Amino acid sequence: MKTLLVDMDGVLADVYAQLLKIEYEEKGIKHKIESLYGKMESEAFEDGYAYVHRPRFFQTAPLIPGCVQGLRYLNDKYNLLIVSSATEFPNSPTEKLKWMHKHFPFINWKQIVLCGRKDVIKGDIMLDDHPKNLNYFEGRKIIFTQPHNIYIQNPSYERANNWEEVMNIL
Amino acid sequence: MKTLLVDMDGVLADVYAQLLKIEYEEKGIKHKIESLYGKMESEAFEDGYAYVHRPRFFQTAPLIPGCVQGLRYLNDKYNLLIVSSATEFPNSPTEKLKWMHKHFPFINWKQIVLCGRKDVIKGDIMLDDHPKNLNYFEGRKIIFTQPHNIYIQNPSYERANNWEEVMNIL
Repeated sequence: MKTLLVDMDGVLADVYAQLLKIEYEEKGIKHKIESLYGKMESEAFEDGYAYVHRPRFFQTAPLIPGCVQGLRYLNDKYNLLIVSSATEFPNSPTEKLKWMHKHFPFINWKQIVLCGRKDVIKGDIMLDDHPKNLNYFEGRKIIFTQPHNIYIQNPSYERANNWEEVMNIL
Repeated sequence: MKTLLVDMDGVLADVYAQLLKIEYEEKGIKHKIESLYGKMESEAFEDGYAYVHRPRFFQTAPLIPGCVQGLRYLNDKYNLLIVSSATEFPNSPTEKLKWMHKHFPFINWKQIVLCGRKDVIKGDIMLDDHPKNLNYFEGRKIIFTQPHNIYIQNPSYERANNWEEVMNIL
């Protein structure tokens, strides 16, 4: 059984939706999603870094549509690991664990890795929205479409635009 | 530069000292350390599992003597990663991060991995007190002496009885 590494933010957790919600509540700004294309989260949201540091940012993040059904499918077919960059934000690891247990009770705690660098994790396939993770991975690379990566064309990636496409590819 | 994986509980954090302290405060029981030899923490402390689940158990754990100087030495010499089993206890990842930042400010967040299973982490050398981690590791294995592993003789391990010995070996 192949080992599949699935990212959390931008693949399971809808970080953009969370940032857009806070930006609107705090500043009344309503970004058009198209205006965020090609920009990293930190460029797209002026105070994004501060928002991400807030308690409960990760714990209350909405789900990316289709990800619960998708993860259930992948969990039967692969040796599945959820690998999330989390150690930069001290509150985030515990919040992320609670979030995983709430939305994905079929994922065991042994399947979760919270780290700083993903190049230390072994796997055969990586599903991630960030080139910084995919580029250092030696196996099969699938980029999950998010506004920041929409213009990236890299022949070493396969692209999944949504969870339906993830299930078709995998 | 070789990648060295260093465990947290039982190598940096003195989990036994923390359990002994709680057992004494709660029940007035003073174990002799020799009476704990060869027993897993869960056997040695009847309510150990409950103690470990308590908030602040990890955040207030004492240091194993010599580990700060030792880790500073290893950090200069190796590509050092701190790898800790943490996802079983939802409060523990954030507590462990705060504990690391407090005692080891020279360790970057990118060097910390909080996981459930250590066999998914790449490395050349592992320093750990638990055979369950060392046995699935393909590189050089160093067992750090703790009461539970004191009788284990395994020719595939090197043994370090304290941090001075760690620095002599590595």
